[in-house]
Amino acid sequence: MPRWSPGAQDRLVQSALDLFDEQGYDQTNVAEIAARAGVTERTYYRHFTDKREVLFGTFGDLTEQLSTAVTAAPEDASALRAAQVGLTTLAEALGDQPRDRARQRSRVLAATASLRERELLKMEAWTSAVASALRGRDVPDDIAQIAAATAIGAFQVAFRRWTGPGRAPGLVKCLDEAFSQARSL
Amino acid sequence: MPRWSPGAQDRLVQSALDLFDEQGYDQTNVAEIAARAGVTERTYYRHFTDKREVLFGTFGDLTEQLSTAVTAAPEDASALRAAQVGLTTLAEALGDQPRDRARQRSRVLAATASLRERELLKMEAWTSAVASALRGRDVPDDIAQIAAATAIGAFQVAFRRWTGPGRAPGLVKCLDEAFSQARSL
Repeated sequence: MPRWSPGAQDRLVQSALDLFDEQGYDQTNVAEIAARAGVTERTYYRHFTDKREVLFGTFGDLTEQLSTAVTAAPEDASALRAAQVGLTTLAEALGDQPRDRARQRSRVLAATASLRERELLKMEAWTSAVASALRGRDVPDDIAQIAAATAIGAFQVAFRRWTGPGRAPGLVKCLDEAFSQARSL
Repeated sequence: MPRWSPGAQDRLVQSALDLFDEQGYDQTNVAEIAARAGVTERTYYRHFTDKREVLFGTFGDLTEQLSTAVTAAPEDASALRAAQVGLTTLAEALGDQPRDRARQRSRVLAATASLRERELLKMEAWTSAVASALRGRDVPDDIAQIAAATAIGAFQVAFRRWTGPGRAPGLVKCLDEAFSQARSL
């Protein structure tokens, strides 16, 4: 067994999701996740700081992509439109993963209170990132916060639709539709 | 010292806020809160299940008021308008407390991570309550969720403005203005 191999991170995520889904998050430990992925515990900790982070590992990168995209939106874009540009980059990144894996992650989160709290903190951090990038575009503070809250709300609706039962279109398309709905409120 | 006296609950909330604010949430225990309020610990536990609940005690009642008001909004009200009717009842209830007390609570929350998480869960529960009441008005699921997210976002903006520095108008007025901003996005 190699100490490190390409794709180890991806295998660790999939092994963790499978184990959490099969036997529960609290009943699973890092040693089991590493074993199923065919790597050592040491390799696990090279990729993730703790057991929870295997589910949230790309979060920091995504937040930065989000801010950058909102900032780079066309100069004449409204606050909500600039927020949409930012969230579209997230939808492109997250929509790339297999839908079944996203569904599995949602299922694991729904079953574990401490993970739901971590997810809420993530959503709050994204809302703050969008609001802050909008303020950098000279959007007044109150408008920036409301536009950010609406945009994250639309993203959550799109994500839930994409991972829900039934045959939803791709995540980017779901997001477009959710923003249309937000505009027509 | 009477074992129970009218207004004990209110005195407990104020004593807790003062102690949390002065010496920190983690450094304060229920015995100190009770002593400062002039009641026994037993009285404290008649009003609140634990130390944290002194900051969230009216939450269940407010959630029910919120749902009821959304449900009872005029039949021809749009989804966002019905959500606004619901949140106006919360603004009326919360805007009744002294603004300094609301500021003190915000300060304590900002300083304590576990309390911020509890507050996020509260906001999520309010979002779900609004979405669920809207679905009861035959609003389609996606629209109900987006309208609820926008409405809670507007409420948070209004609350932050009301408790922020400077001379904001009353909470109900701040909420009206935040909803106008949401509509003009």
